[in-house]
Amino acid sequence: MSQPSRIAERMDAIAPFHVMDLLARARRMERDGRSIVHMEIGEPDFPTPGPIIAAGRQALAEGRTHYTPALGLPALREAIASYYATRYGVEIDPDRVVVTPGASGALHLLLAVLVDPGRKVLLSDPGYPCNRHLVRLVDGVPVSIPVEAEGGYQLGPAHIAAYWDAQTVAAMVASPSNPTGTILGQAELSDLAKAVFARDGHLIVDEIYHGLVYGPHPPTALSVSDDIFVINSFSKYFGMTGWRLGWLIAPQAYIPALDRLAQNLFLAAPTPAQYAALSAFGNETMAIMEARRAEFQQRRDYLLPALRKIGFAIDAEPAGAFYLYAKASRFTDDSFTLANRLLDEVGVAVTPGIDFGTHRAHEYLRFAYTTTMPKLEEGVARLAAFLK
Amino acid sequence: MSQPSRIAERMDAIAPFHVMDLLARARRMERDGRSIVHMEIGEPDFPTPGPIIAAGRQALAEGRTHYTPALGLPALREAIASYYATRYGVEIDPDRVVVTPGASGALHLLLAVLVDPGRKVLLSDPGYPCNRHLVRLVDGVPVSIPVEAEGGYQLGPAHIAAYWDAQTVAAMVASPSNPTGTILGQAELSDLAKAVFARDGHLIVDEIYHGLVYGPHPPTALSVSDDIFVINSFSKYFGMTGWRLGWLIAPQAYIPALDRLAQNLFLAAPTPAQYAALSAFGNETMAIMEARRAEFQQRRDYLLPALRKIGFAIDAEPAGAFYLYAKASRFTDDSFTLANRLLDEVGVAVTPGIDFGTHRAHEYLRFAYTTTMPKLEEGVARLAAFLK
Repeated sequence: MSQPSRIAERMDAIAPFHVMDLLARARRMERDGRSIVHMEIGEPDFPTPGPIIAAGRQALAEGRTHYTPALGLPALREAIASYYATRYGVEIDPDRVVVTPGASGALHLLLAVLVDPGRKVLLSDPGYPCNRHLVRLVDGVPVSIPVEAEGGYQLGPAHIAAYWDAQTVAAMVASPSNPTGTILGQAELSDLAKAVFARDGHLIVDEIYHGLVYGPHPPTALSVSDDIFVINSFSKYFGMTGWRLGWLIAPQAYIPALDRLAQNLFLAAPTPAQYAALSAFGNETMAIMEARRAEFQQRRDYLLPALRKIGFAIDAEPAGAFYLYAKASRFTDDSFTLANRLLDEVGVAVTPGIDFGTHRAHEYLRFAYTTTMPKLEEGVARLAAFLK
Repeated sequence: MSQPSRIAERMDAIAPFHVMDLLARARRMERDGRSIVHMEIGEPDFPTPGPIIAAGRQALAEGRTHYTPALGLPALREAIASYYATRYGVEIDPDRVVVTPGASGALHLLLAVLVDPGRKVLLSDPGYPCNRHLVRLVDGVPVSIPVEAEGGYQLGPAHIAAYWDAQTVAAMVASPSNPTGTILGQAELSDLAKAVFARDGHLIVDEIYHGLVYGPHPPTALSVSDDIFVINSFSKYFGMTGWRLGWLIAPQAYIPALDRLAQNLFLAAPTPAQYAALSAFGNETMAIMEARRAEFQQRRDYLLPALRKIGFAIDAEPAGAFYLYAKASRFTDDSFTLANRLLDEVGVAVTPGIDFGTHRAHEYLRFAYTTTMPKLEEGVARLAAFLK
């Protein structure tokens, strides 16, 4: 009864992350005794802060292991709403907060509610590749718009005007952006929202790297309009990647549909993670997060000039996240091959530009500063020696 | 800049769970001081077993909070494969195990890989409603096939022959089934697989209530063929609902696509849950689970004749899960209204048949024995008094 394999066509559009193969190869090299400097990993090297761990352990000891409501623990939805008031001075009704299994869960849920098959969603290229794949997964059409350093690698009203058509239903931006680390200010968010809303479209803003910024804190898009969909996560700033916990702030009118779909799609976000996250906004945790932010800033402040000195061009000032998107065109016209050579020949793992799109992707490498200062210095020394 | 709400058409097909409204109303009544007997809840009343809790707490103390590989912790994939060897005598390559955020995550991932837009998936009516909604979510077409007590409320080869057409790509069954508790034996699974494979289709078997059976243990569908897709979960038998952890066993040829999509769809299952689940298969945990199974059996052995005595008809012997699907046609031709009256008038919460489909749904109620014996006895007494 052996069966031939038959796979849905949408899978053709879902590219593998090249960095996963590279990471797997780097791990094998490490097992073989090679020293590897990891600058490819999109995950903070810090563990979850102690108070969150303690709250998670306490919740387990108390037997908090049953399902929560699909939209999340009421106390957590209130805590998230309060966070917007204290951090951003923005009032959010807790009823508008949807707690999700990671930001991926939030975006997938949202796209399923907003995007009919064949409808288009505008995205930046370069951009986080899962976003366009999640559009494909609901059989929408991701429209990758080439963005340049001059515009901070971000979509602006001119892009919306040029690419929006009758099939387009939404535009999505990320601030701070992965892979570029660039942010959108209040005026830029407002101009974007006007351009999208003038076309009766939805604006989705990914703020999962909020908090990890190295200058003035950017505003949340919710300070521009309550009609913007904002996605955030406990993964990056709060150091809770493996717990799989994120959230979505949506206009009130969409909450019943999001609730109904969440009940079917994932029932609820993980319960231990939700109880643990109740401790994420306390003063003790925030002090830890701020110390980590300072550490990330120190790394960025070291790595940015160091890479420039070697000969990489970093044209748009990265103000957040933990990435530098560096033009390597002085060294190669094929950054994928360069990334592989860097790993093989000097044991430095970085992510090739093609993981983030196709626009000039072969010119770029992404450096993640998710490792310690001594490791970064070692990596830079190896790069300098190899590329000189 | 206020926006009108626009929601994707697929949401029209995603019905709310009526039981959620009923549950919310029951909770409000309890807050107002009413005594409610809950026989609507599809979740074990037991907490997660101690050894699993302890392992979860230990993992947190050790800082196991980063992402795992998308397919799951290698040690957990091996433990799941070993479980098939010890419990079922079936050899499974650990490479074929995909660890997922709950069985919902497993089914959604699988349907996205198997079902192109417009393609059909055969399902039983009555059946677990999320299944048809998840088919809709990938823009497939769920074909709900009326099933009768005589066939154990299960799909058989005759249904496959009658309903399969050129657009059909898969059939899905559950054993034990929700809401009927009926199971499929080796011969039935084999006949189904032959019928589906003869049409070059996929067979998906939901085994999330495996372990919770009150007679001979049914075989896993994997003992029939390695080409069957089997979904299972730590939620029900292992008492880990809120942790959101399940798994999928797939033929080897599908693993690369499942891996690629899992990376995009949810990155990985929750890390603390995966470490905790490493303790699920130990002797100490299994002894706890078996004691709970005995408790569920005692409840079923009480409730089944008690409901029949009142006048409910339970025509197909429920041999697993924790549900009784009872025909209430002696009392009503509108079980939804009856469910609401039972809650309002005697404080007994049950799930109306319409949550599980449309076929004769108005004749049926689902009773969950996820509460204690004294509560069940109280519920039966109230039902008897009300319906006499």
